[in-house]
Amino acid sequence: MKRTLGTCYYPEHWPAEMWEDDARRMAGAGLTWVRIGEFSWSRLEPTPGDLHWDWLDRALDVLGAAGLRIVLGTPTATPPRWMVDRHPDMLAVDADGRPRRFGSRRHYCFSHLGYRDESRRIARLMADRYGRNPHVAAWQIDNEYGCHDTTISYSDAARAGFRDWLAQRYQSVDALNRAWGNVFWSMEYASFDQIDLPNLTVTEPNPAHVMDFRRYSSDMVVAFNRAQVDEIRPRSDAPISHNYMGRITDFDHFVVGADLEIATWDSYPLGFLEDRVGASATHQRAFARQGDPDFQAFHHDLYRAVGRGRWWVMEQQPGPVNWAPYNPAPLPGMVRLWTWEAFAHGAEAVCYFRWRQAPFGQEQLHAGLLRPDSQEAPGLAEARQVAEELDDASTVQPSQAPVALIFDYQADWAWATQPHGVGLSYFGLVFDHYRALRRAGLSVDILSPDTRNFDGYALVLAPGLIHLDPDLASALSTTDAQVVYGPRTAARDQFFNIPTPLPPAISGLSFTVSRIESLRPDMPIGLSGGGSVQHYFEEIEGDAERLLITDTGGAVVLARGRQIYCGGWLDDTGLDRLTALLADRTGLDILSLPEGLRCRKTATEEFWFNHTTKTINTPHGPLGPAGVLRHAL
Amino acid sequence: MKRTLGTCYYPEHWPAEMWEDDARRMAGAGLTWVRIGEFSWSRLEPTPGDLHWDWLDRALDVLGAAGLRIVLGTPTATPPRWMVDRHPDMLAVDADGRPRRFGSRRHYCFSHLGYRDESRRIARLMADRYGRNPHVAAWQIDNEYGCHDTTISYSDAARAGFRDWLAQRYQSVDALNRAWGNVFWSMEYASFDQIDLPNLTVTEPNPAHVMDFRRYSSDMVVAFNRAQVDEIRPRSDAPISHNYMGRITDFDHFVVGADLEIATWDSYPLGFLEDRVGASATHQRAFARQGDPDFQAFHHDLYRAVGRGRWWVMEQQPGPVNWAPYNPAPLPGMVRLWTWEAFAHGAEAVCYFRWRQAPFGQEQLHAGLLRPDSQEAPGLAEARQVAEELDDASTVQPSQAPVALIFDYQADWAWATQPHGVGLSYFGLVFDHYRALRRAGLSVDILSPDTRNFDGYALVLAPGLIHLDPDLASALSTTDAQVVYGPRTAARDQFFNIPTPLPPAISGLSFTVSRIESLRPDMPIGLSGGGSVQHYFEEIEGDAERLLITDTGGAVVLARGRQIYCGGWLDDTGLDRLTALLADRTGLDILSLPEGLRCRKTATEEFWFNHTTKTINTPHGPLGPAGVLRHAL
Amino acid sequence: MKRTLGTCYYPEHWPAEMWEDDARRMAGAGLTWVRIGEFSWSRLEPTPGDLHWDWLDRALDVLGAAGLRIVLGTPTATPPRWMVDRHPDMLAVDADGRPRRFGSRRHYCFSHLGYRDESRRIARLMADRYGRNPHVAAWQIDNEYGCHDTTISYSDAARAGFRDWLAQRYQSVDALNRAWGNVFWSMEYASFDQIDLPNLTVTEPNPAHVMDFRRYSSDMVVAFNRAQVDEIRPRSDAPISHNYMGRITDFDHFVVGADLEIATWDSYPLGFLEDRVGASATHQRAFARQGDPDFQAFHHDLYRAVGRGRWWVMEQQPGPVNWAPYNPAPLPGMVRLWTWEAFAHGAEAVCYFRWRQAPFGQEQLHAGLLRPDSQEAPGLAEARQVAEELDDASTVQPSQAPVALIFDYQADWAWATQPHGVGLSYFGLVFDHYRALRRAGLSVDILSPDTRNFDGYALVLAPGLIHLDPDLASALSTTDAQVVYGPRTAARDQFFNIPTPLPPAISGLSFTVSRIESLRPDMPIGLSGGGSVQHYFEEIEGDAERLLITDTGGAVVLARGRQIYCGGWLDDTGLDRLTALLADRTGLDILSLPEGLRCRKTATEEFWFNHTTKTINTPHGPLGPAGVLRHAL
Repeated sequence: MKRTLGTCYYPEHWPAEMWEDDARRMAGAGLTWVRIGEFSWSRLEPTPGDLHWDWLDRALDVLGAAGLRIVLGTPTATPPRWMVDRHPDMLAVDADGRPRRFGSRRHYCFSHLGYRDESRRIARLMADRYGRNPHVAAWQIDNEYGCHDTTISYSDAARAGFRDWLAQRYQSVDALNRAWGNVFWSMEYASFDQIDLPNLTVTEPNPAHVMDFRRYSSDMVVAFNRAQVDEIRPRSDAPISHNYMGRITDFDHFVVGADLEIATWDSYPLGFLEDRVGASATHQRAFARQGDPDFQAFHHDLYRAVGRGRWWVMEQQPGPVNWAPYNPAPLPGMVRLWTWEAFAHGAEAVCYFRWRQAPFGQEQLHAGLLRPDSQEAPGLAEARQVAEELDDASTVQPSQAPVALIFDYQADWAWATQPHGVGLSYFGLVFDHYRALRRAGLSVDILSPDTRNFDGYALVLAPGLIHLDPDLASALSTTDAQVVYGPRTAARDQFFNIPTPLPPAISGLSFTVSRIESLRPDMPIGLSGGGSVQHYFEEIEGDAERLLITDTGGAVVLARGRQIYCGGWLDDTGLDRLTALLADRTGLDILSLPEGLRCRKTATEEFWFNHTTKTINTPHGPLGPAGVLRHAL
Repeated sequence: MKRTLGTCYYPEHWPAEMWEDDARRMAGAGLTWVRIGEFSWSRLEPTPGDLHWDWLDRALDVLGAAGLRIVLGTPTATPPRWMVDRHPDMLAVDADGRPRRFGSRRHYCFSHLGYRDESRRIARLMADRYGRNPHVAAWQIDNEYGCHDTTISYSDAARAGFRDWLAQRYQSVDALNRAWGNVFWSMEYASFDQIDLPNLTVTEPNPAHVMDFRRYSSDMVVAFNRAQVDEIRPRSDAPISHNYMGRITDFDHFVVGADLEIATWDSYPLGFLEDRVGASATHQRAFARQGDPDFQAFHHDLYRAVGRGRWWVMEQQPGPVNWAPYNPAPLPGMVRLWTWEAFAHGAEAVCYFRWRQAPFGQEQLHAGLLRPDSQEAPGLAEARQVAEELDDASTVQPSQAPVALIFDYQADWAWATQPHGVGLSYFGLVFDHYRALRRAGLSVDILSPDTRNFDGYALVLAPGLIHLDPDLASALSTTDAQVVYGPRTAARDQFFNIPTPLPPAISGLSFTVSRIESLRPDMPIGLSGGGSVQHYFEEIEGDAERLLITDTGGAVVLARGRQIYCGGWLDDTGLDRLTALLADRTGLDILSLPEGLRCRKTATEEFWFNHTTKTINTPHGPLGPAGVLRHAL
Repeated sequence: MKRTLGTCYYPEHWPAEMWEDDARRMAGAGLTWVRIGEFSWSRLEPTPGDLHWDWLDRALDVLGAAGLRIVLGTPTATPPRWMVDRHPDMLAVDADGRPRRFGSRRHYCFSHLGYRDESRRIARLMADRYGRNPHVAAWQIDNEYGCHDTTISYSDAARAGFRDWLAQRYQSVDALNRAWGNVFWSMEYASFDQIDLPNLTVTEPNPAHVMDFRRYSSDMVVAFNRAQVDEIRPRSDAPISHNYMGRITDFDHFVVGADLEIATWDSYPLGFLEDRVGASATHQRAFARQGDPDFQAFHHDLYRAVGRGRWWVMEQQPGPVNWAPYNPAPLPGMVRLWTWEAFAHGAEAVCYFRWRQAPFGQEQLHAGLLRPDSQEAPGLAEARQVAEELDDASTVQPSQAPVALIFDYQADWAWATQPHGVGLSYFGLVFDHYRALRRAGLSVDILSPDTRNFDGYALVLAPGLIHLDPDLASALSTTDAQVVYGPRTAARDQFFNIPTPLPPAISGLSFTVSRIESLRPDMPIGLSGGGSVQHYFEEIEGDAERLLITDTGGAVVLARGRQIYCGGWLDDTGLDRLTALLADRTGLDILSLPEGLRCRKTATEEFWFNHTTKTINTPHGPLGPAGVLRHAL
């Protein structure tokens, strides 16, 4: 498959007379795709029921005539002002109980059935009109679910929906009381109608209560998305996608993704580094113009799984953005590097956000491929270079990685519900493992927790799965791969209670986590031989091969056959030692890559990426700052 | 009196068939006491008026039959869900005006008379049924008043109650206007019904207004507690207690305690160190597995005063807890050390919280003496060791300490109302003095500000009493002890106004605080000879013996006869110098104990406690980490 | 003109029998002015319509009889409690949607027309009674507009007023939609009544929306102030003033000031340094007892412009205050220094706040010239010394400075609306330039952005004018002075949209800002030759003389003829280099003053001020700590 480029365009923002020239320049730069429409509801339906298709008809014609293929977005992330008059209670409510207001975007509550119907209606109308349009080659539903902390809403609609959801799940309130352990602190309910949302309690609410509300909130995103899929699919053969974000874990992307043909995501490496990677200030400084060397790769691998192999970057940062705490310009070459990195991980397409920098609105300071005065911004030259390189070289051939890493959204909610130590997160734990694998030069497949077949993997990492589905446990304990569990693996049952016998209680593991503790950042527990356990430590009872022990001889990493348990959160040195042990046990070749140099293998090539500002020697020669090296295998 | 051990148990959390074995194991471990019932309202009264005593009858029988003595708790800290339907306005309201929700605990406003009646009713019903039960050897009312910031509520009930309270206190609104100085900023009221609670004002409210609201809020706790006492006392001969918390100063424990026979408190050394001691990160790191070496002792001494000599530790941390920012496991030996330290300070009993770790609810990660799978957790062995040691040795004989330290809850509210510098608190000032006395090896009695007789004390410290009752002033100025005042002593009258003549204006003191200032943490004022004044400094006019002066010759500590005034907040070196001067003036022998080694004298023994992770030499030989040494005098 | 001193007095706080002695002591200390009345509404009108003038009549008589001249304040900053009963919706509402409560001051919303009428009424009544009183020599309207964050209110009254204001400004909602770019994110409105205030949106609101709300909010302050002016002016010949605060930029002081004869401001150097200067901790420590060496001077120069030459310090800090995070006492001599500094910058009068420290209310710990016991506080001796010095020496003769610095309140709102980097503010940028000019020993005139005539200035600095009025642009590009623009100059049109051609687009400038970025504090961009660009950097295309370039050769400061553009936020070293270059180009003599030594030239003298705790050598000899030196030219 030929990898392709594209951009995001807002014809409604510009005089119609500019469209043709824009389209010509897009095609001329080697772009294939153009995404449009996803924020245009107030132009499609200025007043209720009064549909204005003419401008969009024309835009599709003009863009299509230039040879561009369209991704058409449904505009449901930006309900117009009149919608709020029609459904005043559709607004999301925050944890403090404040309804949010019209005036930006994503101002709807996923639980509001009235707004869900309106979204279904506009999707149906668009699909009726454009479902068979020859230029519409893909759909996007809504925009960036969960962005701006919008998955969870404490509205009246959410409360009503949650009660129904609980009634469906538990059938009787006594069953719920038992499942949640509501005898604790006399929290027992006499009916589902007594159950409130878990905000504004005096001290922390019952974790089982919170966890069910997290599940419910995720289900509402799934339902909202599916409502539009159900309208579009019968009316169009084009694949349907959604553009996910970086490090948004509030809903289960695997479940949303199961209803879509393609997963896409919006990759803003510099914004993310400042805003959500969670790295040290030193690291942020070192990569301020390049972005974190692993964060994008992680999401590429994650969304490849969410899209069951089909995935894009729908919005690629092309210059400084507007929304991070600080918004520097990328190092020259990074726009090209980011694009090639996506292809190396299997992206079908990379689209730059946005075509022309907007002179108005909230994103005035978000760079485009063009400046507001239509001159070329620096990113465009790098995009054009990639387009030429794509024409010149063989296409990227994906292949299965030797290492699998399980990512479970529910585990992230569970850790957030009960972190036990300030700032401890499941995402952070998994990402630390991912970084360590990348430092070792390994390519990684991220897998859903629904995976049952691990054939072809030498190594499967499953850190932090606080609830472990019995079928997954069974699949893991019987695969031929080496499997790494812990910490907190299987520490809670499906209702968030501690199981007996105590965890991990996995078939073949002969030991028990007898006590757990969280640690101040300044009190790591040293490992004998180097490195340490930080943040989280488990005391383990029982007999097994001890792969890593503490300075004082306590077990940290234990093995029974191919199953390995890590009873703590290892620091980088500890993780590197673990990776070396695992390489030994699996026969995988590993490297020790310097900071910022990363490698990704495909079926036929090694891609090398230099995320630093200095030249680095690779096994295949020196690689300059922001450099990309393709080495045929 | 034989010192005893116990535990906290929740029969309603476990199948009834487990109770007998639990009771047998408790008794077998040497425990005497078991506290039950305090969160069980939803099981005692599942629907309004439908009382279910059978399970509690049986639990009392089973536990009593094993030889255990029961502390029976009233369940009013956890009103059931139906209570909120009956009294929707009973919920506490926070300073932002948000009513808190059902779903955890302590979700009631102390001012709500309807809920106070409900609490009185359940207490009466329990006393009717169990007041003469031979196994019920003590009562506990409610649980941890003030925990989770619940003393102060800005509800409608509180506003109505506050107006009545003010009307009672001032009789006329003109008197209130004069007392509060409401002419300032035109804050005068024409009727009590115009007075609102002092939250959500544009800038700070009148401190006199705040201070009266603090007094009112404390009085509501007193009234709430007394309502239950009034029901239980005529129906039972067993003593009545309440379990206070660490560093909760929002209500006057002396006044609540005056209605009770026994004061108990809940001692969580590791949680407190992370959460509320307020120590430096270095100190927190050094004592992360041991707890602060003085914080528990301070509360032991404080609650000995609140209980007029009769006090317990009702909940003793036995392992990691769940609620602090970080939750490490205790150093081996600390559970034993904490227990013996309580006895050395005069505790009648120490009960461990809780018997078995709960697999559900908010405290899943709170260790018990048993693990969730009923195996022994490490704390149990240490408890058993103490039980054996109690059997083998003579009992602890309390005696009056040579030094008294006055602790005044109202002074804490006053400093909080007007700290004058960020983070300055009365508790912090008093605790700094207490630490200094402990570093000098001195045993301390904490006294209520109602104390009038200081016989037997060589030294009385009364720091920071911003309002000084004239009778206390008179008692202090005429006792034979050396008395230390300041800073801020007598700086406000009863209505929170600056008195004239200026403070301290104490009989026998010939000087005046002419100006006060608060200091940035980085601008201490050096003392001539070492140490410094930090945080708070008073310029003093007048003639007196100068015990400590600044580098530039300004007076800091002044003496006239036995009365000493300290015009600033001394740092540790300054306090140690002051202590040495006081030892000189009183003839008290002092030591200079290393960090973490502490000593407590009783009538017949010296107890030595090593709170560190290293062996330390004591005058009676080396003492290992977490070590306890009893030396007969 | 003879410079004079005064104080602020609250006769209503003290028994009437004290007034005469107070007045006698004021006059005896050399004070000329006494401000009264501004918080006394509850005494003037205890119940609605029941006016009590008698006490104020008497106070004016007593003070006037002692030879004092009165500044009479309208009491509208402290509406009495009954006012809130009359107009319950007059309370300001904060950004979280919470109405603020009675109980402190400034609890009104500027948009509330009912309260505006009440304010007009009390002003009229006061002017009727005292407009021709021989002792009333000036008026003050209200007190410290904007203090306690009170300019901006999200009340219903504000929403209604904002809609009307928008309708007036845009005439049609389509025009508004176009101006704001509401096509972005489907934010288009169908009527003005659909427009809400820009708080509580899900993510940031449209900056054009915010900016118009900032303009509207400022206009409401103007209208509120003008309403009272309109009542007083026809009834009195005395000049009318308002006392502004330090670093409050939420309303346009130039526009408010245009309705008044005199600008005054309240100068609290120690409180400001802790609370709002924004300096480093090291700087705060170094000047903790002296205040920032430039902050007061900046405001003196600013309010000289606001008052069109006529300005006072209405409240001068005389000792420790009560309201800052820390409240130290001033270094001896600083009260005198602050007073002389104000005179050196042209103040007509300096009044100390307050005469006697209040024993009650929120400002108990605010020092006065007298202590609460009526003894002299240290500030009084320094005030008396100044009074004597004023008698002995020639008066200060103001003159135009050689350097002008434009300060534009709207630019401050614009930067706050869209800072692009955490903590970046227009005030901070301008103040950095001001400091650099002062380090070079230059006296500065601050000018309004309405200035069109720059005759007599060698140098005009206009940093950060994000919107540049075309008339100002024209005046600047044609003046004979050297003019310094940038960064962000002319980067937005009047509606907050990016203009085309791209900025700066100023006549005579041949280059374009092609890209902008904000920088982490730890990633400054080095300048070739020393210093760096921090916070904010612009990439510039085009041809011009390059005055400062980056280490890698990028343009930073460019010149075309007398017009200079600075494409970044220079650090202190960079600003000093720029100042040196500008001195070279203008022929201005500059110095390099050590930290804390400052110089101000008048027509006939150089004033030197030593803000440090050490003696410093000046060109005219050594100057001790807190020293003031007058050198005749």
